[in-house]
Amino acid sequence: MADVSSTVRRFAFTAAQGGVTAAQGFRSSALHCGIKAKAGALDLIVLASDAPSAVAGIFTTNLVQAAPVIVSKRHLADNRAHARAIVINSGCANACTGPQGLADAEQMTREVAAGLSCDPHHVLVASTGVIGVNLVMDKVVPGIRSAVGSLARGKGNEAARAIMTTDPFPKEHAVVVHTDRGSFTVGGTAKGSGMIEPNMATMLGFLTTDAHVPPPLLRRALIESARDTFNAITVDGECSTNDALFAMASGASGVAIDEESYPALLDALTSVSRELAIAIVRGGEGATKLITVTVHDAPTGDEARQVARTIANSPLVKTAVHGADPNWGRILCSAGRSGVRFDPDRATVHVGGVLLFENGLPHDDAAPAAAEHLKTPDVRIDVTLGSGGGASATIWGCDLSAEYVRINGEYRT
Amino acid sequence: MADVSSTVRRFAFTAAQGGVTAAQGFRSSALHCGIKAKAGALDLIVLASDAPSAVAGIFTTNLVQAAPVIVSKRHLADNRAHARAIVINSGCANACTGPQGLADAEQMTREVAAGLSCDPHHVLVASTGVIGVNLVMDKVVPGIRSAVGSLARGKGNEAARAIMTTDPFPKEHAVVVHTDRGSFTVGGTAKGSGMIEPNMATMLGFLTTDAHVPPPLLRRALIESARDTFNAITVDGECSTNDALFAMASGASGVAIDEESYPALLDALTSVSRELAIAIVRGGEGATKLITVTVHDAPTGDEARQVARTIANSPLVKTAVHGADPNWGRILCSAGRSGVRFDPDRATVHVGGVLLFENGLPHDDAAPAAAEHLKTPDVRIDVTLGSGGGASATIWGCDLSAEYVRINGEYRT
Repeated sequence: MADVSSTVRRFAFTAAQGGVTAAQGFRSSALHCGIKAKAGALDLIVLASDAPSAVAGIFTTNLVQAAPVIVSKRHLADNRAHARAIVINSGCANACTGPQGLADAEQMTREVAAGLSCDPHHVLVASTGVIGVNLVMDKVVPGIRSAVGSLARGKGNEAARAIMTTDPFPKEHAVVVHTDRGSFTVGGTAKGSGMIEPNMATMLGFLTTDAHVPPPLLRRALIESARDTFNAITVDGECSTNDALFAMASGASGVAIDEESYPALLDALTSVSRELAIAIVRGGEGATKLITVTVHDAPTGDEARQVARTIANSPLVKTAVHGADPNWGRILCSAGRSGVRFDPDRATVHVGGVLLFENGLPHDDAAPAAAEHLKTPDVRIDVTLGSGGGASATIWGCDLSAEYVRINGEYRT
Repeated sequence: MADVSSTVRRFAFTAAQGGVTAAQGFRSSALHCGIKAKAGALDLIVLASDAPSAVAGIFTTNLVQAAPVIVSKRHLADNRAHARAIVINSGCANACTGPQGLADAEQMTREVAAGLSCDPHHVLVASTGVIGVNLVMDKVVPGIRSAVGSLARGKGNEAARAIMTTDPFPKEHAVVVHTDRGSFTVGGTAKGSGMIEPNMATMLGFLTTDAHVPPPLLRRALIESARDTFNAITVDGECSTNDALFAMASGASGVAIDEESYPALLDALTSVSRELAIAIVRGGEGATKLITVTVHDAPTGDEARQVARTIANSPLVKTAVHGADPNWGRILCSAGRSGVRFDPDRATVHVGGVLLFENGLPHDDAAPAAAEHLKTPDVRIDVTLGSGGGASATIWGCDLSAEYVRINGEYRT
């Protein structure tokens, strides 16, 4: 990322390497313990901070919650928002696995805690993979012991690769934030909506910073940054049993975040999260195009988000984009069924900046230019509701291809 | 349909031929006026009653409403719920066509009214086809005059074929209802979610009966019957600009419907509507399987419907059914994100009557039997929420195939 300076904000970002271990005070280790069948496929990660870090977490809103989600929420309730480590596995979601699944997730945290000589409540856990299958703890336990023994700096990229299921590429990003008080780093990694075998995709995200952040501010920054990043993407409108997003703040940079410097942390978390979230959509199942849907001049931000999300999830819009068809009618009609009130005669529809609909009527002459834009891998759809409210929101989605059907229909449990 | 008798209900159905003109007092005419490019393709229908009939209508809830929807609603507000005719065209939706579109829809009703010597407010109008294109009235007006001049009984099947766009087959159904007071007939036709060119699909339905029904009872029966039939189906979760459902009651059978005999009318309308609605789903774009999703033991019927609809619209469930994958995890998880509260540990999931999930755990041994069921064209999914409320609801949907993507992605505006 290039330098972004702001005289108003009084801070600037520069790019950094290292992903989730770019920030000082964090080490990681990733290895193959045998959850994934393929020899050598990384399937276990331990991410640790050198000292107790402030921590915050956000979890799936699905009523069906995997064991690691339940255990991590319990630990966050008991650890006064401080943690030493997160243990993560891919290849098995440990979801719908009953009491044994909960016991296994607890045991994973205990193994890490033993290795780090900390309380098990200071260890969180996340899993992604097949639903309804128990972890083979005979492989996981030795794996965790080995991983804790080989924690090191500079191995963030291994972690980014180890959390992948059928994600087509690893996702990591980091920035250094330069402020009046000094510099701190924010980095992270995420996995997205690839499918491992024929089960529910899972979004996992891990963010680290070496800023010193009081837990309430870290939690607030995580929630606020996720709203317009991880919570503003959609591949197929499905919400997993295992979705989880964590942020850890080690304080190792010596830069303290308070109310005054909060905007710098929030912007950095948002920037890193946006990169990771958009990468998840680009790597969505069968996706060939990123679709950025922005709704303007809505009564409220929530209503703008609701309209944008309905458009981004519309199968008719997604197939039209896949086929490079400038079908403003499908865009307008999905807005019209979103549940948000507006006057269609005051609405406009742009595709790739090309005005296709206004005053209740199409601009047929503009269709060829919009069709050209739709052949590119970065598609922009802008809908103005004309409510006078002035609120806007962006949702990132992707096209719907026959490959999505193949991926999700041809595998077998 | 075989005889269905009920000692409690004191009425019975027998099958009838003739679709939308099976009931006495109705005539129709269908012809090619030139809206569709293909020579001879039927694209214009006039459905008329011999005398003013009671009428009721239900329309799309999309904010974007086509001109024929706006005009029909206006006429229903002015005609004291009585009408002589409905004029219908396929090949052009007359939606997003501005003031000219409204003028054209009004003119269609005036041409029919002139031919039948009635008030234009006693004529309703419906259209289906491409959005954003005006009707060529130079073809439509002579077509209407010719159609009004050739109205006849026994031509209901022509009407069923003429309202098709890319529907794979015509849809019509009729029953004779035998009651203590005598017999009356209920018939109808509908079109579904084929696409004509790359625009919004439209659901149109037309029901007729020769019972004598006070307009308020007809309206109530139409709304109640649609709830569990036309409003309980989904192909892709999209709601069109032109969706419309009409019922006309001529009274020609001499059988009067009042509060006491209302159940006979409601059941007959529901029976005909269910046949037509399920036929729409079977003919859905790219559909290879009908999916009947029933949710049991929900707190309320609305909540049962909400869960069933979320499951039926889930792209992961739809692709799993397409691939004959007994993926109870996707079914449970779509229920879990439906917004309805329930305890997953008390829920059960059956596919084709085979229990796949209960007490928070899968029944892996049952998967092969469920997989066999999923290879059939009629798939049943049953989810019990275990709320103790006892409410249930059924939604009919279809699988998601690569053909859906092809139909909606490969055409061009």
